[in-house]
Amino acid sequence: MIVDSAHYKNGVRQHDDALAPGRAAELRNAAGPGEFVWIGLHESGPGDLEELQTLFGLHELAVEDAQQAHQRPKIEDYDQDVFVVLKTAHYHEDREEVHFGEISMFAGPGYVITVRHGPGSELATARQRLEARPDLLKLGAASAIWAVIDKVVDDYIPVVDAIEDDIEEVEKDVFDDDVPAPTARIYNLKREVIEFHRAVWPLLNPLETLEQGGFERIPEALRSFFRDVADHARRVDEQVSSQRELLTSVLQANLSLVSVNQNEVVKRISAIAGVIAVPTFVASVYGMNFDHMPELHWRFGYPAAILLMAACVVALVGFFRRIDWL
Amino acid sequence: MIVDSAHYKNGVRQHDDALAPGRAAELRNAAGPGEFVWIGLHESGPGDLEELQTLFGLHELAVEDAQQAHQRPKIEDYDQDVFVVLKTAHYHEDREEVHFGEISMFAGPGYVITVRHGPGSELATARQRLEARPDLLKLGAASAIWAVIDKVVDDYIPVVDAIEDDIEEVEKDVFDDDVPAPTARIYNLKREVIEFHRAVWPLLNPLETLEQGGFERIPEALRSFFRDVADHARRVDEQVSSQRELLTSVLQANLSLVSVNQNEVVKRISAIAGVIAVPTFVASVYGMNFDHMPELHWRFGYPAAILLMAACVVALVGFFRRIDWL
Amino acid sequence: MIVDSAHYKNGVRQHDDALAPGRAAELRNAAGPGEFVWIGLHESGPGDLEELQTLFGLHELAVEDAQQAHQRPKIEDYDQDVFVVLKTAHYHEDREEVHFGEISMFAGPGYVITVRHGPGSELATARQRLEARPDLLKLGAASAIWAVIDKVVDDYIPVVDAIEDDIEEVEKDVFDDDVPAPTARIYNLKREVIEFHRAVWPLLNPLETLEQGGFERIPEALRSFFRDVADHARRVDEQVSSQRELLTSVLQANLSLVSVNQNEVVKRISAIAGVIAVPTFVASVYGMNFDHMPELHWRFGYPAAILLMAACVVALVGFFRRIDWL
Amino acid sequence: MIVDSAHYKNGVRQHDDALAPGRAAELRNAAGPGEFVWIGLHESGPGDLEELQTLFGLHELAVEDAQQAHQRPKIEDYDQDVFVVLKTAHYHEDREEVHFGEISMFAGPGYVITVRHGPGSELATARQRLEARPDLLKLGAASAIWAVIDKVVDDYIPVVDAIEDDIEEVEKDVFDDDVPAPTARIYNLKREVIEFHRAVWPLLNPLETLEQGGFERIPEALRSFFRDVADHARRVDEQVSSQRELLTSVLQANLSLVSVNQNEVVKRISAIAGVIAVPTFVASVYGMNFDHMPELHWRFGYPAAILLMAACVVALVGFFRRIDWL
Amino acid sequence: MIVDSAHYKNGVRQHDDALAPGRAAELRNAAGPGEFVWIGLHESGPGDLEELQTLFGLHELAVEDAQQAHQRPKIEDYDQDVFVVLKTAHYHEDREEVHFGEISMFAGPGYVITVRHGPGSELATARQRLEARPDLLKLGAASAIWAVIDKVVDDYIPVVDAIEDDIEEVEKDVFDDDVPAPTARIYNLKREVIEFHRAVWPLLNPLETLEQGGFERIPEALRSFFRDVADHARRVDEQVSSQRELLTSVLQANLSLVSVNQNEVVKRISAIAGVIAVPTFVASVYGMNFDHMPELHWRFGYPAAILLMAACVVALVGFFRRIDWL
Repeated sequence: MIVDSAHYKNGVRQHDDALAPGRAAELRNAAGPGEFVWIGLHESGPGDLEELQTLFGLHELAVEDAQQAHQRPKIEDYDQDVFVVLKTAHYHEDREEVHFGEISMFAGPGYVITVRHGPGSELATARQRLEARPDLLKLGAASAIWAVIDKVVDDYIPVVDAIEDDIEEVEKDVFDDDVPAPTARIYNLKREVIEFHRAVWPLLNPLETLEQGGFERIPEALRSFFRDVADHARRVDEQVSSQRELLTSVLQANLSLVSVNQNEVVKRISAIAGVIAVPTFVASVYGMNFDHMPELHWRFGYPAAILLMAACVVALVGFFRRIDWL
Repeated sequence: MIVDSAHYKNGVRQHDDALAPGRAAELRNAAGPGEFVWIGLHESGPGDLEELQTLFGLHELAVEDAQQAHQRPKIEDYDQDVFVVLKTAHYHEDREEVHFGEISMFAGPGYVITVRHGPGSELATARQRLEARPDLLKLGAASAIWAVIDKVVDDYIPVVDAIEDDIEEVEKDVFDDDVPAPTARIYNLKREVIEFHRAVWPLLNPLETLEQGGFERIPEALRSFFRDVADHARRVDEQVSSQRELLTSVLQANLSLVSVNQNEVVKRISAIAGVIAVPTFVASVYGMNFDHMPELHWRFGYPAAILLMAACVVALVGFFRRIDWL
Repeated sequence: MIVDSAHYKNGVRQHDDALAPGRAAELRNAAGPGEFVWIGLHESGPGDLEELQTLFGLHELAVEDAQQAHQRPKIEDYDQDVFVVLKTAHYHEDREEVHFGEISMFAGPGYVITVRHGPGSELATARQRLEARPDLLKLGAASAIWAVIDKVVDDYIPVVDAIEDDIEEVEKDVFDDDVPAPTARIYNLKREVIEFHRAVWPLLNPLETLEQGGFERIPEALRSFFRDVADHARRVDEQVSSQRELLTSVLQANLSLVSVNQNEVVKRISAIAGVIAVPTFVASVYGMNFDHMPELHWRFGYPAAILLMAACVVALVGFFRRIDWL
Repeated sequence: MIVDSAHYKNGVRQHDDALAPGRAAELRNAAGPGEFVWIGLHESGPGDLEELQTLFGLHELAVEDAQQAHQRPKIEDYDQDVFVVLKTAHYHEDREEVHFGEISMFAGPGYVITVRHGPGSELATARQRLEARPDLLKLGAASAIWAVIDKVVDDYIPVVDAIEDDIEEVEKDVFDDDVPAPTARIYNLKREVIEFHRAVWPLLNPLETLEQGGFERIPEALRSFFRDVADHARRVDEQVSSQRELLTSVLQANLSLVSVNQNEVVKRISAIAGVIAVPTFVASVYGMNFDHMPELHWRFGYPAAILLMAACVVALVGFFRRIDWL
Repeated sequence: MIVDSAHYKNGVRQHDDALAPGRAAELRNAAGPGEFVWIGLHESGPGDLEELQTLFGLHELAVEDAQQAHQRPKIEDYDQDVFVVLKTAHYHEDREEVHFGEISMFAGPGYVITVRHGPGSELATARQRLEARPDLLKLGAASAIWAVIDKVVDDYIPVVDAIEDDIEEVEKDVFDDDVPAPTARIYNLKREVIEFHRAVWPLLNPLETLEQGGFERIPEALRSFFRDVADHARRVDEQVSSQRELLTSVLQANLSLVSVNQNEVVKRISAIAGVIAVPTFVASVYGMNFDHMPELHWRFGYPAAILLMAACVVALVGFFRRIDWL
């Protein structure tokens, strides 16, 4: 489904309503420097993209990649054109989960086509932000490439911060005795962090290539903007790496604490067992049937035995308290 | 055994039936640009390959490698020729196991020879797919190299996805209390993933060399196709790396959960032991033989004792419930 | 808030009081080689920086970064200008915690602007140290870049040494039986060390670039000073890496010791249980109601039984002592 | 001790018996292209090597290295000469251990000297294999360098396969409940694998240098042979790396299984204890001495009590069976 | 304190007694090629070095580094001069600990100044070894740089071998049941090995630079000597890396064995408890007070009961022996 389609010239959007694909292709063919059309698709059916493929001469392999889900993030150079795949990330507050989507982008002289799948990174905002900057828009299609990547990478930051919060919650749970050990939650966070790394890491190299001027069609004036994006992506990736290591440590700390806790439990249990076993033994003694057991015939033999048992209990409780088993 | 052997010229297969090796060699010697023969062998006996070695002047070291199993995946340059070793992967649904096979490929101006061992990656499909693309076929033997590597790498994807499914099953087992901890299965998955990494990883570097035009005999027009293969191989390798890390975490999480579980068991057991030990103690007390134990002579001493015991049991059960040991 | 603002010429501060921003910008525009103004801000509100942005033509992306907290440490090249972000570290003695702050620095021909957030690395000292070195000050704005980075990196060293002390304390706790296992503290140290690594590591590469003359505006004479800073940063990073590995080992050693300790506890408990169970059994035997139990009628049957029980206890205690369970 | 010493010219050994060192040195000085002498020493005493050092002008540092054991594997360039140190590996079937030996090799225009220490890699086979290949022998001393490295690396393969078998045995032991956990054996395998890595890994870089023509005195025609060796060495190193990772996982899986097993044991024990404790309690109740306990006077009180106890046992066994504790 | 100070010319020491610093500086200024003075300091006070700084024009940053302890090992280039920091290692036999010291070295045309702190690597031996080699001494100050680094790196080898021995002892303790698990000792070894890595690793890169002729003032003839040192340093670093990995495995194996051991203990304890509980139950049964318990009135009821109990014990011991719990 085509979401929006516009013609930009001299840094200004030429009209408010969406262009038909055919008209967009004509404008593109006639585009001068710094002029371009930007067509935005969302959850495109196969027909949409195939029409554009013919009109704009998109490379078959790029189109194939854009149609299949689960591509690897990448920035690829096709002669005159660039093909970009990005993973978008979105934190689902209620379920405390990270959801990943995908954006493919075809760009070349005079045109940009973006295809969005799944949740995360509304491109409308990216377009608005760019339209508010005629100085960048004037630089042509490359400015839209920047605007999209910048949007996607900026949207990583709240997600990675939400994961940071989750990790802090998990830490509190781990080091707080009253809460059950959240092994499954630690593991799920680790899974998310690993997946996040796979979303960000493959971008770092091509973004550095962009930053150092590796793609010649990127105007010099945009390079520091691409460097800014690369820097944010690196920050996200470094934070994600730290989180990965932290979660490994949390898991180890958790295991260690479970063992410490088990030690405490075993000690307490044993102390209780000891406290009961000794008076039981005393009772067994006076349950023996010897003919000559003088205590049995004492007037206060029974209360004395009860007192003896109580004394044993008190002494044992005291002892186990002192060695910190109770 | 020769499975198929064909002569391609101007992007078209010249005949349907298989060529004799001698005729193929003649055609190869007379081949113009973009013309080549493709001989496919399966589980070749030693004689097959030696005949072709003489006819096509294959390098002795390459032939030696193709005859021994368990080679390292590689793409090697021999003057005019290229020698490729690939690991094929196949997921055996019933046994939930990955099986690995091997494909060796000799290629040079005017000829391609493929030798397949073990399960996985039927090359007939690769050949059909290529025959349906005269535009690529026209580019000569290099197009067959691409077709074979593309087939093998594409066949990795369902395997890696099946492993992903297995990991998800294992996760469910680990975090579900009622199923025994699947340590052996986690370990076997890890083994497969490590072996998979060994199958894919050595390909990444030579594929990047191909992609960047390192082998001069690969026509420019095929480079983006090789880049596509390299990209898929990288995706598989990155997924496999994530799986490796996930499985390490699963093993740790499993250990942690086993310990947590043991803690629960120990607590429950101790609670039960305590619940029995206290009334037993009471019974021992009234089993003592003191002359003067007034309770023994009470009319309702016995039911009172039974009630006392029952009260102890109720109190203890309540207590252990409250501290969550029962 | 502008903390200090000075004009340096020929290696000498031109006046004691702070310059107004406008005057500073004029001096900068007229600055000859080796002449510059240095404006220091602390916890700057948005207005401060925006005024300077207009006066000094700072790059918008750099200003944006300086205003947001939690940037990645970096040294960036903007045409004529350099933009530096540094993490400052400060060890809070009472809470035994590391606190991180941030310094941003804009520098170019004729000017340096520093913006400090949070605790750590008072820049006044850096300025005084530099003012005491007219030979360096004479080299222009680059000397102030060096002075600031040098100050920040030098301030890492007491922090990393304090962490070293904390680790040694933790080691003592782990290997000393009488102290509870400090899992939470080990984990918090690990967290700090990971965060420290994130503060130092991204600086190493750009510092090496500076050291090798990668930024052409850095005078040759300052290079060995930048190398010195790079060397200290590397030392800190290597120490932090060792600490990270040590803390992992401490956690493992702790787990191992907890298990060893549990083994000891289980053995001791079992020995005690055995020591009580045997005489209890003896008492049960003489509690049986058989008609013909000769011992029951012996004159000294009862004391003999008591002696027998005592003998059992002594023998068992001896036995468990010998096998080191008590 | 000199094992063999021969003069090769035009790809043919010139005589069957061993040359005296002096004669060998004369032949070397007069050697034309592709002509060389090969002197093989075994467990050489110091005198042997010193004589050759004077005769052939070997570099003092190389000779020093060849005399001391425990050198690092390496391929070093000395002006005209090459000095090679290789670790040989041999699997001792009976003790299931890997033994490492060492081969040093001096080579230069017209001569090769090999010095073998300890077990593994009989060089006589390498020599015979080379003598059967006049086409390679003709290329001069470099062919003997290849023959020796090829022999040593080929001999790694059965060793690494034997370790693979040992790992599979260990896996079976770990996942088979009836066999004690083979921690010590896993550890010893890990030690061997780490040592193996140290034997192979340092060779990879210089072999790649040879393969890419880094040593100019290696004839072009031999390069694909060196590439073949490098490829085998890489295969061994990759397998050894996988084994290292597998053994780490085996150790973790073992720990996990030991804990699972302990859980089972604790459950079974507790079930048994419960099964005994309940009838013991019943017996205690009827051992009480209350005057009014009607059951005691029943005709079939005793068998009824026995039946009650038996019923308790049956019920408890059933219960524990159901919750899978017995 | 100046330990020794000598003037070398044409490969020969010019006099036996120590030079005054002033005279040394004069000789240095007049030094021809291959001529130099070598001043050796030990635990120098601040005055010593400052005097030499003025006389020899040492760089202030290098002097600062030499005065502070705990520098990072490095080889730095200052225009004409080289500044070297080395960590020396010494194994303290009695305390089985590695002690680290530090050597700083200033060198340039015509002079070498060495400053030694702490234990390890007596430089007198390095000087004597060099004085015995006029061929090297003749090459000037660079030969002394080599002699010192060579001495320090050679002294690493006995230390790393002593650690190897300690690891082997620790392995024996871990796998020998009768010795308590040496967790603290494993940890301390790990700490030493990590510190050792920090001492050796930073040297590898600059040594490789020296080896490849990166420092132009090093005469060609010395390069293979520097390569030899680099090779030894690499060997030490690789051994230290292996040890690090081994110690991690030892810690894991230890944990695994502790758990296995605990399993054994728990089984044995439970068996013993079972063996006592059953006859106790039997005794309780015959302690019941039923009117009609025929066994109680049998002539041999008591011995029969004792026999029954004994039979139970024998049967249980046999059973637990068979399932390997006793």
